[in-house]
Formats: sequence, C-alpha cells, structure tokens
Amino acid sequence: MAHKDGLKIAVIGGGSSYTPEIVEGFILRYEQLPVRELWLVDIEAGKHKLEIVGELARRMVAKSGLPISVHLTLDRRQAIEGADFISTQMRVGLMEARKWDEHLPNLHGIIGQETTGPGGMMKAMRTIPVLLDIAKDIEELSPNAWLLNFTNPAGMVTEALDRYSNVKSIGLCNAPIGLQKWLSKKYDTPASRIYSEFVGLNHLHWVTRIEVDGVNRLPELLDKREEYSGKNVPATEWDADFLRSLGGLPSYYLKYFYMTDAMLAEQLESLKASGTRAEVVKRVEDELFELYANPELQEKPKQLELRGGAYYSEAAVNLMDSLYNDRRDIQTLNVRNGRTLDFLPEDASIEVNCVVTGQGPLALPVTRVPEQTKGLIHAVKTYERLTIEAAITGDRDIALQAMVSHPLVPSVGAAKRLLSEMLEKNKPYLPAFFKS
Amino acid sequence: MAHKDGLKIAVIGGGSSYTPEIVEGFILRYEQLPVRELWLVDIEAGKHKLEIVGELARRMVAKSGLPISVHLTLDRRQAIEGADFISTQMRVGLMEARKWDEHLPNLHGIIGQETTGPGGMMKAMRTIPVLLDIAKDIEELSPNAWLLNFTNPAGMVTEALDRYSNVKSIGLCNAPIGLQKWLSKKYDTPASRIYSEFVGLNHLHWVTRIEVDGVNRLPELLDKREEYSGKNVPATEWDADFLRSLGGLPSYYLKYFYMTDAMLAEQLESLKASGTRAEVVKRVEDELFELYANPELQEKPKQLELRGGAYYSEAAVNLMDSLYNDRRDIQTLNVRNGRTLDFLPEDASIEVNCVVTGQGPLALPVTRVPEQTKGLIHAVKTYERLTIEAAITGDRDIALQAMVSHPLVPSVGAAKRLLSEMLEKNKPYLPAFFKS
Amino acid sequence: MAHKDGLKIAVIGGGSSYTPEIVEGFILRYEQLPVRELWLVDIEAGKHKLEIVGELARRMVAKSGLPISVHLTLDRRQAIEGADFISTQMRVGLMEARKWDEHLPNLHGIIGQETTGPGGMMKAMRTIPVLLDIAKDIEELSPNAWLLNFTNPAGMVTEALDRYSNVKSIGLCNAPIGLQKWLSKKYDTPASRIYSEFVGLNHLHWVTRIEVDGVNRLPELLDKREEYSGKNVPATEWDADFLRSLGGLPSYYLKYFYMTDAMLAEQLESLKASGTRAEVVKRVEDELFELYANPELQEKPKQLELRGGAYYSEAAVNLMDSLYNDRRDIQTLNVRNGRTLDFLPEDASIEVNCVVTGQGPLALPVTRVPEQTKGLIHAVKTYERLTIEAAITGDRDIALQAMVSHPLVPSVGAAKRLLSEMLEKNKPYLPAFFKS
Amino acid sequence: MAHKDGLKIAVIGGGSSYTPEIVEGFILRYEQLPVRELWLVDIEAGKHKLEIVGELARRMVAKSGLPISVHLTLDRRQAIEGADFISTQMRVGLMEARKWDEHLPNLHGIIGQETTGPGGMMKAMRTIPVLLDIAKDIEELSPNAWLLNFTNPAGMVTEALDRYSNVKSIGLCNAPIGLQKWLSKKYDTPASRIYSEFVGLNHLHWVTRIEVDGVNRLPELLDKREEYSGKNVPATEWDADFLRSLGGLPSYYLKYFYMTDAMLAEQLESLKASGTRAEVVKRVEDELFELYANPELQEKPKQLELRGGAYYSEAAVNLMDSLYNDRRDIQTLNVRNGRTLDFLPEDASIEVNCVVTGQGPLALPVTRVPEQTKGLIHAVKTYERLTIEAAITGDRDIALQAMVSHPLVPSVGAAKRLLSEMLEKNKPYLPAFFKS
Repeated sequence: MAHKDGLKIAVIGGGSSYTPEIVEGFILRYEQLPVRELWLVDIEAGKHKLEIVGELARRMVAKSGLPISVHLTLDRRQAIEGADFISTQMRVGLMEARKWDEHLPNLHGIIGQETTGPGGMMKAMRTIPVLLDIAKDIEELSPNAWLLNFTNPAGMVTEALDRYSNVKSIGLCNAPIGLQKWLSKKYDTPASRIYSEFVGLNHLHWVTRIEVDGVNRLPELLDKREEYSGKNVPATEWDADFLRSLGGLPSYYLKYFYMTDAMLAEQLESLKASGTRAEVVKRVEDELFELYANPELQEKPKQLELRGGAYYSEAAVNLMDSLYNDRRDIQTLNVRNGRTLDFLPEDASIEVNCVVTGQGPLALPVTRVPEQTKGLIHAVKTYERLTIEAAITGDRDIALQAMVSHPLVPSVGAAKRLLSEMLEKNKPYLPAFFKS
Repeated sequence: MAHKDGLKIAVIGGGSSYTPEIVEGFILRYEQLPVRELWLVDIEAGKHKLEIVGELARRMVAKSGLPISVHLTLDRRQAIEGADFISTQMRVGLMEARKWDEHLPNLHGIIGQETTGPGGMMKAMRTIPVLLDIAKDIEELSPNAWLLNFTNPAGMVTEALDRYSNVKSIGLCNAPIGLQKWLSKKYDTPASRIYSEFVGLNHLHWVTRIEVDGVNRLPELLDKREEYSGKNVPATEWDADFLRSLGGLPSYYLKYFYMTDAMLAEQLESLKASGTRAEVVKRVEDELFELYANPELQEKPKQLELRGGAYYSEAAVNLMDSLYNDRRDIQTLNVRNGRTLDFLPEDASIEVNCVVTGQGPLALPVTRVPEQTKGLIHAVKTYERLTIEAAITGDRDIALQAMVSHPLVPSVGAAKRLLSEMLEKNKPYLPAFFKS
Repeated sequence: MAHKDGLKIAVIGGGSSYTPEIVEGFILRYEQLPVRELWLVDIEAGKHKLEIVGELARRMVAKSGLPISVHLTLDRRQAIEGADFISTQMRVGLMEARKWDEHLPNLHGIIGQETTGPGGMMKAMRTIPVLLDIAKDIEELSPNAWLLNFTNPAGMVTEALDRYSNVKSIGLCNAPIGLQKWLSKKYDTPASRIYSEFVGLNHLHWVTRIEVDGVNRLPELLDKREEYSGKNVPATEWDADFLRSLGGLPSYYLKYFYMTDAMLAEQLESLKASGTRAEVVKRVEDELFELYANPELQEKPKQLELRGGAYYSEAAVNLMDSLYNDRRDIQTLNVRNGRTLDFLPEDASIEVNCVVTGQGPLALPVTRVPEQTKGLIHAVKTYERLTIEAAITGDRDIALQAMVSHPLVPSVGAAKRLLSEMLEKNKPYLPAFFKS
Repeated sequence: MAHKDGLKIAVIGGGSSYTPEIVEGFILRYEQLPVRELWLVDIEAGKHKLEIVGELARRMVAKSGLPISVHLTLDRRQAIEGADFISTQMRVGLMEARKWDEHLPNLHGIIGQETTGPGGMMKAMRTIPVLLDIAKDIEELSPNAWLLNFTNPAGMVTEALDRYSNVKSIGLCNAPIGLQKWLSKKYDTPASRIYSEFVGLNHLHWVTRIEVDGVNRLPELLDKREEYSGKNVPATEWDADFLRSLGGLPSYYLKYFYMTDAMLAEQLESLKASGTRAEVVKRVEDELFELYANPELQEKPKQLELRGGAYYSEAAVNLMDSLYNDRRDIQTLNVRNGRTLDFLPEDASIEVNCVVTGQGPLALPVTRVPEQTKGLIHAVKTYERLTIEAAITGDRDIALQAMVSHPLVPSVGAAKRLLSEMLEKNKPYLPAFFKS
C-alpha cells in the first residue's frame, strides 16, 4: 500500500464503548500508521452512543494535535468507500439479544455463553448475514481494503467471510495478545523474546510451546498455574493433575468444556446474585458512557480496562501496522487453515501464529498438536461449520444438527427444545429462518 | 493359501457360549473352507465351560460326518502353532469385570456400557495387553496366520494390534452384517443386491448410502425409521426431525451419544429392575451352558440367538472364506484407515467397507461423509488413541486425558473420581498401572 | 438401473473398424446385458464406413436371432437421447491427422506417437473440445447415462470430462485386460484367480503386484521377462538389470520413456521402410472394410484381431455388465484419483483397480507405489493438465508450457519449433487456437 | 541459547578458499554473534591449505582486535565437541573427483554438472556417508549444536541428514540471497522491503512472487528479463515467450533442464577451450591461495568474489544470528517439507522461505505453485530420494534407478554405461559400493 496522504479507516460499530481504545491506538502509532480519516459508523439505534463516543474521539484527537479527521455517520457505504482498513465490532441485537443468549440455555441447565454453546450459535446466526452484507459493500466500494473482524464469535464470522465473500479478511481476538502481555510481565522479559505457539480455534486454543528467552517454560506453567484469565470468564481453578498432562496451556474458555459442571453452577449462582452477564456488562457500559459524555474528558478513561476487552485496540493497530509496513512479525490470528492442521478442511478458520506480510498473514506450521486437543477441536469445528451453513440457509434442520453437534449440548431432546425457544426469541434478527 | 489337507483354526476364548455358532458355521461352509483341525483354547478359569462347549462341538461335528478334529486345550501356544486363522472372543476379567464397567459409571450418573464410555475404556485397558501378548505368540508360531479379532472394544483392540504388532489382523463386528440381513428381509432382496456404505468407527458408524436394487432407500429409512436395533441396546426412539437430517442411518450405539439422558434413565431403571446388563447376560449364559451340557444335544440351540451376538459366526466364516478363496467381495470390517477418512491418522482403525482379497482387505473410498459425523468420530477416536496409549504405558495421566476426552464424560472432576474407582476395581487386570 | 424392456446403447464413432467387436460382445453377453437398441452414429465424412460396418452389424445380429435393433445415424443427439450407455471411439481429424502426429515429431528427432509425446498432445487438443460437446448433449438428453470413453488419449480425455462436465464418465483401455489375459494363459489359471495391482496413468502404468493363485509372481516376471507387448508398440527388449529393480512390470508404452533412443531409431527405420504407423494402420483398415462389405459375412472376421485393439470390446461389455448388474468385481479403469495417489490432485485421472458397483467404480487403494514411478507419473500428469488447459482455452503459451513439460521433449527450443508446425497443421481441428 | 562467554564455531572443510569470507562475516557481526572460538578443521590431504588460510584468518582477527581465538586442527571430534554451530563446506574427492563428475557425462553427450545430473549424483554418493559420519560425532559430542550444511548437493545432503540422523541441520545455498541482493540493487530498495517467494528444491527453484515495496514486479521481470545469473552457470538466454508464461522466475540452474541442448553445446565448447569447469576453478583457487599466503594480507581479498560463492558467508552468518537471537526473520533455506508442498513426502528437503526462530526455521506456506513446476520438481526429487538410498545402501540397482530417473539422462542404456564408468572412477570414495 502506498498512500501518500494517509489512510482511511472505517470502524463499523463505531458507537461501541471500546472505541476510545482504538482511537488511542491510532494516536500512539501515528508515525508508523498515518491515519488521515477515521470513520465511525453505526446504525440508527446506536446513534446516541455514536455521538457521545464520537465527540470523545474528536477531543482525544484534538488534544494529540494530529491531522486526523473523525467522521461520524449512519451511512455505512460512505464510510467503506475507498477505505484502507475496515474493522467491525458490533453486536447484532444489542445487549438484549446477548441476555437471552446467556439466559435461555441456563434455564435448560446448559452453559449460557456469549461466544460458545447455544448462545454463541445464536450470535453467529444473527451476525454472519450482516457481515456478509458488509462484505458485499466492501467488494464494491473498497475491494483492496483489509477487513479486520473483531465481531464475535470471531472464528465463525471469519470463516463465513472467507468462504462466502471475496473480501480480504482476518479475524482478531485479544486473548493471544493478553497471554503474551501476561507472560512478559511474569517473566520480566520483552514480548519479542517470548515465543508462544497457539493451536486451535478462536476461544478454543491451547498454547503448546512457550519459550522465554529460549527456555521452555511450558512445564512449569502447567505444573502450578498461576491463573491467567480473561475478564469475562470466572476464575474456577484447573485440576492440577489434569493440567500437567494436557500438553498445552488451555484458553480460559476451555473451562466451559472441561469443567462444565462447576462453570454451570457458577453461572446459575451469579445469575441469581447479579443477573445475566449481559446485564452486568450493560451496567458497566452505561457508566462508561456517562464518563464519555463529560466534555472535559480528552483521553481514554481507566475504567474502560475493566470492561474485558483489554488489548483489543493494540491487537488491531499492530495488525494494521504490519500489513501496512510489511513488518513480517508473528501475530496470532484467525485465518484460513490451509494445510496447517491436517485434520481440518483447508477452508476452516483456525487461530494460529502467522507472519504478517504486506500481502497478508501466512499461517506458520504448528510443531506440536497434543492428541487430546484434536477431538475437541474437530467437534467444535463441526458445530461451527453446521452453524455457518444454518446462518446462510436459514435451514432449521441444519441448525438442529449444529446444536446437537456442540459438545456442551447434552442431547437431541434438549437441543430441540432450546433451539425452538431461541429461534423464536431471535426472530427479528433471523429473517432467513422466518421466511413466510 | 494352499493347504492340500485343510486348515487349522484356533479359537481363543473357545469356552465362550458363542462357540456353537462358529462350529455350525464351519460345518455349513465346509466345502469352501475345509477345516481340518479346530482348536478351542481357554484359560484355567474357563476350563469347565470349555469342556462343556467343546463336547457339544464334538457332537455337532460328529453328526455332520465331516473329517474335522476338535481339540480342547489350555495351552495357547499349542493352539496357535501353525494355525491358518486365529479368532479371539474373550473377556478379560470375565462377567464380574463387565459388571463393574457398567455399574460404576452409573453410580456417577454416567452411561455404563460394555464397549464405550468409561466401561469400554476399562475393558480396552484390560484386553489390549493380553491381545498383544497373543500377537507375540502368533508372530513366533504362525506368522502368516490371519488374526480375526471379535474381542471388544473391537476398534481399539484392532488398532492396538495394527500399531504395536506385526500380525495380520482384522477386526470384526456383527452389527454391519446384522443391518444387511435386516435390509434384505425388509426389502425382500438378496444381500448381494443391496449396497450399504458404512462410515465411522466400531460401534460408532453411520450408514450413509443404502441402495436396494439400485434404488436409493436412505431417505425413506431416515424418514420413518422402523427400528433396526441390536439385542444389547435398549430401543429408545430416535427423534424424527433429527434423524431425517442426519445424513446417515446411525448405529444403535449412537443413541448413547445423541440421547444420553434417556439412555441413562433407561439404564438406571433397568438396573433397579434386573441388575446390570452383565448380570442379565450371566443368567442367559448359565441357562445356555445347562443346555449345552445335555449329551443329547447335537446342534446349536435356538436360544443362543437371543444372546445378542447373532451373525458373529456368519461374519467370521464369510471373512475366512474370502481370505482363503480370494473372493474379492465387499465386507464391512475394522481396518487401518489409510487414506480413507481424510481427517484421521493413517494408522487409526475405522469401520468401513472393504474388498476382501486373498492378500487381505482393501478399504474402499467413502463417497459421502456427512459433516455432522466428523466431530463425533474424531472426538471418540481421540479418546480411543489415548486409551490405547494408556493401556500400553499404564500411565494414569494419559488415562485421565483419555477419560476426559470421551464425549460421555461430563467433566474433569467426574472423570478423576470415576477413573480412580475403576482403576482400583480393575487392579488384578491392570498390572501396568500397579507396578510397585 | 431398471429397464424392463432392455437397454439403449449409443456408439459414437460407430463407423470404426472396431465396431464388429463390440457387436459380437453384445451378442455374447445378451443374457446379462439385454440390449434393445444399438445406435451407431458417425459424422458425415464417415458415412460410407458407417454403412458398411452397420450392415455387417445387422447381419451379425440377425444371425444371432436376438431382438436387438441396430440404428445407423449421423444425428448424434438422436442417438444419445435416452441412452443408458454411450461409448466413444472416434478420431478427430481421421488418419490424416494421426499421420502428422507421428511424422512431425520424427522430423525433429522426437518420438512420434499417437497417444503420448507431442503427437498425443495434438490428439488431445483436437479431441477434448469435441468430447466436451458430446458431454453437453448427454447432460441434456440422457443425464443418467454412463459415458464409456475409449477415445485416446483416454487419460486426458477422461480427466477433461470429469473436470469440465457433469456426465458420469469412465475411461477404458485394453492394456490392463490384455495383461490379465496374457497372465491367465501363461499360468494356465483363470483370470479370477489372478490379482494384479496397477499404478499410474493411462499408457503409463506399472503393475506392482501380481499374485497367481495366491503366489507372488512379480519377481520372476521381472527377472526374465517373456515379453508381453501390444500390437502397436515395437518389441524392443528391456534391460534385465533395470527391469529387475524397477518394482513393477512396466506398460509397454513406458519404453518410449526408458529407451527413447532405441525407440526413436526404430521409428525412423520403420518410417523409411513402411511410412508412418498411421499409414500402416490405414492399409489394414482398408482391407478390413473390404472384408466387411462382403454381404456373406455374418460375424467378426479373424483379421480384426491383428488391428491392435484386442479385448476393447470385452473390456467395454464387462464394464457395462458390472454397472448394470452391480457386480462389484475388480476392473482396471481410468477414473478420478480421489485420495488414491497421494501426490496427485484429487481431480487427476489415473489408471487403477476399481470395484465396479451399480453406482459406478470405486478406486481401490494402492498398496505399493515404487519410488521410481512417482517422478515420471507426476511429470506426465503435469504435461497432461497443461494440455487439457490448452485444449480448453486455446492458449498458445500454455500449450508451449505443456509441450516443454513432456519428458520426451528435449528443450524449450525444440518444443517451440515443433509446436508451431503442429498447430499450423492441425488448424482445421483447433478452432480455439485460431480465433481471429 | 545462552552462552555468557561467547560461541564455539566449527568449520568442517576449514581449509576451503571460502574461509576468509566467513571469517570476515564473524568479525563484522561480532556484536550480534559473539564468537569466542573458531575451529577450522580439515583432513590430512588439506593440511597445507588449512595452514595457509588459517594463518590468514588469524591475521584478520588480529587486525579486528576482537577476542576470537582461531584453532586449526585435523581432529574433527575436538572441533565438534561442545560447538554451538557447525558448518560444513567440503569436497569429498577434491577437485579431481569434480573433474570426472563434469567430464564423464560430457563424453556421453550428457550434461556434466557439479550439483545436478550424473555428476551431482556421484557427488551426493561420495558426500552423504561422510556427512552422516560427522552427524554421529555431533550427536555424541554436541547434540544441541546446529549443523549448517553448505556442502553440495545441499538439498540431498540435508535430506539425508534429516532422515538418517538426529542432528538439527539446515541446508544453505547462496542463490536465494544472491537474488535478493540483485533485486535490491535493481530496484534501489532495501532487501527488507522486498518479498520473494521461493518454490522448489535446491538448485531447482522458481521465484513465484516478487513484491518490491508492495508492488508485484514478477510480470515485468518475466517479460524482459535482464539476466540474473550465478558465476557458475553460463549465461545462455531464456526464450521470451517461454519465460513470460512460466509463472515464476527460474533458478539459473533450470537452464540445464529447459535448454539442455544449448547448455550441452556450451559445455562441450568450453571444455575444448579451457578444460572442465573443475580445472578452471582449480586455477582460480591456486591463485587465491597464493594471495592468502602473503603474510601482509590481513583481509579478505577482492578476488575471492570472482570465485562463485558470493554471499555464502553472509547467508551463514545471517542464519546463525537469527538462530542465536531468535530474530524471526524470513530466510530461504533447505528444510524438511512437512506439509508445505502437498505433492512431496513430509520428509523431503525443499528450498523454501522460512521464519527463523530461536528453535529453528519454520517453513512458510507457499501461496503460488505453478502447475508446470510440479512435474519437474517431483521428477528431480524422485532421483534425489533414490540417490540417497543408493548412497546409504551401496546398491547398484538402486543407483541405476536413480540415474534413469534423472530428467537429464536420456535412456536406460546411457545410464547403465555411464553409471558403470562413474562408479569405477569414484571407487576410492564409495566403499559401500565396493564391499568385497
């Protein structure tokens, strides 16, 4: 890419509470990544938030003194036209839909989670058609743009984009960079001296090699794991014997699969105490927007870090920087499998280390894939592929097969009852399923 | 093979109640498969049964007037030496061990089953070392013999033999021939005019093509399934919507995976009413041996068919016949995957259609593998491979990983408690796990 | 297939001198393969021959007393409509084009051969567009028909049909059945007791296993090879040391690759003595048609067997019989590779043993692929794929890459000169290359 | 690696005329790659040269003022013990053997070349057993060392080391770095802004992507190629039409395959004019050693650059630097294929872009593999694998299959005659072939 006068960036879902993070990222990285225009775009229902966060963005840029123009719009096509990078961070159905994603499974004694299980499945089915629609606009209006997808469930959304559009897209999650940061702090070593090998899918990975300054630290990390955990997964403890022989440091999302009983109990208890996680998050967000609305505020408030999406912005800016400057550094991304994992289809999205060149990421070969990860990876990928098919076709039979295939769903009977309720609750967002 | 004076057959576990079946098979197929010596071999603990069933075998042969000599022995090596075919049908730990395989998981609210789940895992760990021991004898005493393995869990045992011995072995199950018979009767068409394509593992297959006289009958079979079921799996009904979109007629063992809740309820109820299935089978067997002991009896009694292993003998004799006569017919067998299923290792055993030539079976390519089968196949194969490794090494950590990997085991916690109890109960049969 | 009143067969290129063979085949196999209508179709330029051979066919049928009607037509679509089997045996450009295929390379000191080398390449480029045109008619007029392709180069034509049409097609060659017949006679053993494993491509195979009545005969066949050879390849002798370590009995066409010098010398000498092989064949054909025209003749004349295509008819009738009756026997056919040879694309056509079911052939896994065959197979397949692409696009650059890739072409310079001459000579048959 | 007091390097074949290059490299890169001990080791026959070049090395180090100690030895084991990096640059049979490698094929009208064709085959068979012997020493005396192999034919030697030893080895060639340098100069752009994708084998690669500052320059480079060529391959011109459609910039060694006739003519002419290339090189070397012997000389003389091995030292030092410092930059190396090229075995060595981490190189996936490269790559790899087998077993039959498989060898007859002569001439260096 060669843009003499700087880059155009479009952030779809620009009214998100995360936006100040990415604005800060652009300001800090301006020298390497010269942003000329930043377009924040949202839908009508998000207009109010867009304005609040957009004004904060403008104040942040003004304070920086950089020649970045911030545009707020409800016209997605205008934002996309001629963009160099487009990032998406949206929530089809808003927090209300998430609430049901989490709540309805719980009512059936099943894990209710935003990105996996029946909840994640509904989110995928709401989101994929919208993203494919955005992709059509990009194909038409900025065919050379990179689409950086943060929208969850990022693995399925990325795979759908890869298989059903011609847009150059990459999926991103903050968990890998979070681990790197945690290791860097723990071992007091710069991240560039730490090599971590990720194997698996988005929100379903194992870290199978960790070398700090050339020393293999995986055994000690598996042996007495000081917990590294995300903000959005409760901190139930791993069984020590199990962890030691697992062959890789598990993503904290894997607790839903390995300690289903304890995690469910935790969910039900938390539900009783403070409502669904969606409701908790909603309250945090409301508080954030109160802060954002303060016209004195000219920077990202500290409180945003509690929100759970730490490093999202850094991950995004790192990726844009490497694509723009052909940095060829290693980042952990959601990309097409190719021949990386020999047991998955070539067009399956996986989460894996990549070298990021100016022409895009190249997935690195994995050097260790513990036997015990394979079955679970493939079981979840099977669910993911059926879910993508259901999202695109609106076929209830396929949706049933998808839900039954999910390892957290205990039986066909449970799946059938739950699917029926969830489809009904999501009716406004699933037109393909409710064609007359 | 060219044996001018007939074949030597060794049946390991010859004191089994199934033996009259296979004796009948040899008598009926004598013209194609000229058996000269039939060696029934068993262990000391089975001597009494061996004698009863062996005497019956002798009376059956006598009645046939064929020049087959029946040998009863506790000396395995003598039976193996120079044999052409060796079949194994044994039960390490006898019915008592099976009882615990079924009962202990039930106590933890988990499916208790002889060939899958934690029960099947224990059975595999008891059986694999014994079979590998037998394989060593064969390597030494009859290296060109075919080992036909009926011993459950047949998939894992066959894979262990393939990977850890040099013996030519094939795994056999009666389910595929049972389905063929059922279809043949239902459509009033000879089996040779019916083509069924099997995809999956032992006790975990889907029949993804069924053509009767060239007509595709799969849709109608999936649509209103008149139940085809084994004797040893209760007849819970499939959900019609689910079945219709499943893409293949499921093995009845798949009910444990798809309707875990109903199957568990059924097990617990049946347990209350009549004890474990092992106990029920034990009673049936005792009755059979009473019949066998009758010196007037000169043929296989009708009651044996109720025992659950229908067609085992026919499957075995068919296979020997095709190997001996290079028949090149299609049989469904447990063999090395090779490049048949592209998502499993080449050395994984699978259950698949083969052409049986004089040099052994050649796996046929599969033409349809429904997406929804892949995750479950790979999840179970992962458990199987870890189980085989545990069986061979006696490593408790690997055994824990194996049990956790099984889709019927709900969590690490449950696996850990159950594994500990089950290992303890199986102590006499698991020397590798209890090395001082 | 279920045709109460018999089958409709269309033979495209029905005016061929081989036609009496296939007519005889239908008569002999009538009980298993009840042909009701036999359509012989040819182009205007072949009308005279069609009439001669068609009348002979009618006399042969009449003598047999069977209720088969023989139709002669120039209307291809009429012949194809509703057909059950369509076979093609044609020669685009007739003998004249073949003459140049053989002669022009010779003028440059390069092997001139009908089915391989630059000559085979031209033949492929003339033939593939015509076959794809026929395939379009079949898609429309008899979509369930099987297309049996005998038209050379059969491997490339079959691959083109598989990749660029939706017709169910199978490629056939008489070399494999010829070898079986030769072995059967040599060892005085019925073909059903002989197992031969073929590895490779059409006219480029190695027979890597030969078991006669269960005994491995490959070593002795490689050791002092009594020559098995085709009518159309001169009988230059194999080097004994080379053959012994080759790992498989080579197709006689492989002499062009392994003994290029001797074969070229032989061609140049024979050219001097009796003209091109095309001219020799032409004379044989003229004599055959003189015989055919005799109204007394009511059967296939013995002289036809000298023509070089022995067993073509038997191969064709065997294949139709197995498809029609779901015989599940093993035949060596040209089919899509699938996962058979792990180093070729899945959509490459290969020549390999198949089980022929009612739904089509299933390629059997190969059990031995000698290292030394792989490079040559892949080199020729590379040439084949580029040739297919050139045939379809009419792109001269790709044609040049194809010719350079052929192992019998010594350099880019030679390829360029020869290609230019050959394209010019084939102008009437290569419209794609001469678009204004 | 963490060596507080610096690295130990062993250069096997340290008496080579190239040694001053690598010494210069260590001096220039001292800050990143702190060499403490440099061991130059050679055999008895090379003692004189070792002393000359070793003294020069000492003078160069002395002038630099760095604390590097230079050791000269004939005791290989002493040099290897505890080394961190071992590089090999040797010539089994010296220039005399090379002379015959080049000359004997020419006498049969076949390309005579040091690293490919029959000459390269002999060199491989002489070299592989010696390298495997060195590998055994390394396994014992410095099992964590990296073996950097420059010894030609580097592809085959590297593959042999990978398959038949446990040493961590990487093969290196100066051609890729040479191309990078050439591009960098031509486009006046730093190498770090140029991305070149290599596909193929050592001395048999195509560069299928060339992006300079993000702009695709491949088409223009293929269109009017200003020649980039090595010192040791004559500069015959590529055919423009051919090159344009080749899909990748060919290695200059590919001229031997694509323009065999012209290259052979050039060889024969040059042979007449100035003797074999070995003899030419010998004279250049003699002159170099005269220079080296001058006690005034304290640096690498300019004349060395004419010798043909430009950038070898830079390639070596780059690689050591990246391994030592975990640089994760991209280098083109000879490594195990893994799943990079889907048509070659996983254990085949290929020449491909790698990310060099502290734990070794990771091969990057290839994004474009032109169809026309595949056949030739596989044909040469087939020859290479048979050659490796012959080198290890000393089996003449396999050696014959290897030579016949080489695309530059025209027939079995020629191969047999030439092989016999060449084996005889190499008798002192091929003990495995001349066991009594």
